[in-house]
Amino acid sequence: MEAAMTFELSVEFKDRFQQALDEKDSAFIKSSLDGVNPADISALLDEFDAEECKYVFDLLTPETGAQILEDLEEDVREEFIKEFSATDLAAFVELMDSDDGTDILYEMGVADRNEVIRQIEDEEKASNLMELLEYDEDVAGGLMAKELIKANLNWSISQCIEEIRLQAENVQKIYSVYVVDDRENLLGKVGIKNLILGKAGSKVADIYDDQIISVETSTSEEEVAAIMQKYDLEALPVVNARGRLVGRITIDDVIDVIRENAEEERQLMTGVSSDVEEDDTVWKISRARLPWLIIGMVGGLVGAQFLGFFRDEIIIVPALAFFIPLITASGGNVGIQSSSIVVQSLANPNVFADSMWKRLLKVFFVAIVNGAILSLMVFGAVILFMREQPLAATVAIALFAVVLLASFMGTITPLVLNRIGVNPALASGPFITTTNDLLGLAVYFSIAHVLYNL
Amino acid sequence: MEAAMTFELSVEFKDRFQQALDEKDSAFIKSSLDGVNPADISALLDEFDAEECKYVFDLLTPETGAQILEDLEEDVREEFIKEFSATDLAAFVELMDSDDGTDILYEMGVADRNEVIRQIEDEEKASNLMELLEYDEDVAGGLMAKELIKANLNWSISQCIEEIRLQAENVQKIYSVYVVDDRENLLGKVGIKNLILGKAGSKVADIYDDQIISVETSTSEEEVAAIMQKYDLEALPVVNARGRLVGRITIDDVIDVIRENAEEERQLMTGVSSDVEEDDTVWKISRARLPWLIIGMVGGLVGAQFLGFFRDEIIIVPALAFFIPLITASGGNVGIQSSSIVVQSLANPNVFADSMWKRLLKVFFVAIVNGAILSLMVFGAVILFMREQPLAATVAIALFAVVLLASFMGTITPLVLNRIGVNPALASGPFITTTNDLLGLAVYFSIAHVLYNL
Repeated sequence: MEAAMTFELSVEFKDRFQQALDEKDSAFIKSSLDGVNPADISALLDEFDAEECKYVFDLLTPETGAQILEDLEEDVREEFIKEFSATDLAAFVELMDSDDGTDILYEMGVADRNEVIRQIEDEEKASNLMELLEYDEDVAGGLMAKELIKANLNWSISQCIEEIRLQAENVQKIYSVYVVDDRENLLGKVGIKNLILGKAGSKVADIYDDQIISVETSTSEEEVAAIMQKYDLEALPVVNARGRLVGRITIDDVIDVIRENAEEERQLMTGVSSDVEEDDTVWKISRARLPWLIIGMVGGLVGAQFLGFFRDEIIIVPALAFFIPLITASGGNVGIQSSSIVVQSLANPNVFADSMWKRLLKVFFVAIVNGAILSLMVFGAVILFMREQPLAATVAIALFAVVLLASFMGTITPLVLNRIGVNPALASGPFITTTNDLLGLAVYFSIAHVLYNL
Repeated sequence: MEAAMTFELSVEFKDRFQQALDEKDSAFIKSSLDGVNPADISALLDEFDAEECKYVFDLLTPETGAQILEDLEEDVREEFIKEFSATDLAAFVELMDSDDGTDILYEMGVADRNEVIRQIEDEEKASNLMELLEYDEDVAGGLMAKELIKANLNWSISQCIEEIRLQAENVQKIYSVYVVDDRENLLGKVGIKNLILGKAGSKVADIYDDQIISVETSTSEEEVAAIMQKYDLEALPVVNARGRLVGRITIDDVIDVIRENAEEERQLMTGVSSDVEEDDTVWKISRARLPWLIIGMVGGLVGAQFLGFFRDEIIIVPALAFFIPLITASGGNVGIQSSSIVVQSLANPNVFADSMWKRLLKVFFVAIVNGAILSLMVFGAVILFMREQPLAATVAIALFAVVLLASFMGTITPLVLNRIGVNPALASGPFITTTNDLLGLAVYFSIAHVLYNL
């Protein structure tokens, strides 16, 4: 990375910084952080404990502190804000955009939260925050900031620019000026480029663009992300149910949504139950992983009970046992593939998506093609290496049936989960693998039972 | 979605549109698409074949056509551009930003590509495109556009605005004006807000911000995405190895990178080998899924061969076979969990990450905790339900060993893959599951062999 700053995060610097903290060497801390981007200071402070962070904060300007606070990792921040008085926190929150301030307030208990809001001097800011706290965190209302620049349709461009001047302190990034009527209904926007290039005397009404895309406060964050991606927007105005302009969502917040959703999906798919990272404690990582492992283990025990019914078959034809891993692994692989394709299409909704029945029909054909190819290969291999025809037939037919069954389960499970409001990515995780294992074994030994006349 | 447009994509509309295409009802097509956002027209045209798309295109303005072309799905577009002459394509490419034009040219053969470039009338555009085609698609040089607004340090603000006026047609979104010296070295930027609010007489040198973050043309797209996310940037200037400003990356392109990387990761993790979607043909979906299924099947056949060595053990103690699914499933689950945590930390590089040895030590402790808990539970369950002590001991000890082994494999595999330049997400896919199955079985039956004195 090429950057104008000379500061670089490194393990050496972190150690030197730790030493400075231990010695309360405020001169070193101040000088080494001078001019450093707050996002970098955040990344550094993520590595220290709440008390140490507090010491550093007290050496920095409130403006820098507020920016660092926005960027800290959530689990670090939750501990950290306990170190501050309500008055301190109110001062930081006043320096933030209302959406970032709301994020901080969400992390506090209701009593503490109200105390901080009471300490905020700017009354408009306080009422903005109270309004934003009313929305769920995962809808447009919970993502938006109140800070935006709006202009009345009847204004001139110079009035517009005067408004920007008035609000400049509050609005970090402008992008567009939103155009409203006297009742605050959103009508359109004036791009920043047109504002610079427009003649000072012309009216907003003459140059504004009435093709504006907006969302309602209740729109889900996934839909907000999809709309901003589709139309390449860096900011999206939010209106209430009556069409009044109430806020604005910026692209940086949506990128966080996209990243968080991808991480949640991965966690569900790989069976790590809560938000863990490599640098968490051994106990936290173990606990996050244990629930899924126990589900898998219980599945394995049920499988063992179940195979117990076929004890006689296994004693007579022990080779049947040899192919248990092939059957369970194939069922698992097919199930994960199928569910992953469905999860992908649920995540990128397409109005032209096939109906449930068409989907299942297609999945059925794909399963027949893949099942047939795999079965023929396995049949050939078993004949070739083991020269046992009934065994080859059993394994081949069972494999074909398992591929069909696992495709069906892998397709239907995410659709059902999605219908009942559960994240469909769960269907690609250890849960579906365990289910497919059991179903696959049932099919396999039932077919063996018939073919061997046992 | 609340929007000023009355147009809505629906299955009914698609059918009506298909009918209009069949009847060559140009009046309906023109009127129904009038004023519709090009991104929506793209989503509609993704559903039709290349010839039909061409018919629609010829009814639209070249400006709209160029925007639609940018948004079409890659596989649709690759077919579609074959319908056009080099002259037509050159006209479209001239209307696009250079980064989007480069994306189109990448999709063509070298001869066709050169022909299109020859047909471009704007010589600056043509040379920009040729420059961009020199870069790899996955580095900053391949992501950037040449269109940007720059100002000399010695200019006044009014000269800056004059420059914007001159370049306004070429640069869709401004964000910042980049400040350079006489040799085009990047020095800093002037935010658009300061430009609007600054006094016309003041100098760029007085108001510019010299704390600017930039990347080199060779910076990887992952690093570009990480930097833009970390510092909340909507545009990032790109300099060459000598520090000269050569281009600009905008956030919309980076969002595409983030999404594509997440999709690639999912494909590797779930064993769907190429970029397939639910609406692809049965044959394409089957083919994309088959390679991994065959790997899993071959693994299963090797497992069968391997279990054949333990035929006698299985005949004497058939219950050993009952726990094969438990052993393989637990190994698979632990392996996927471990690799997923490593993949996540590789995707979010942290300068303070532990060394390889520290990581392995931690993984080892987590495995001991989880392995011990699972083993005790299994031991209790087998004693309780089957009342066979040597069996319970065998399964419990084997499970403990398998959890340790699979944790180790799941941690080391993505690290090794990453070191040799392969996407580490591959380690969470069917490959590691198959390997863990085989290793787990080997451990299980070796322990049985010892404990049963067979």
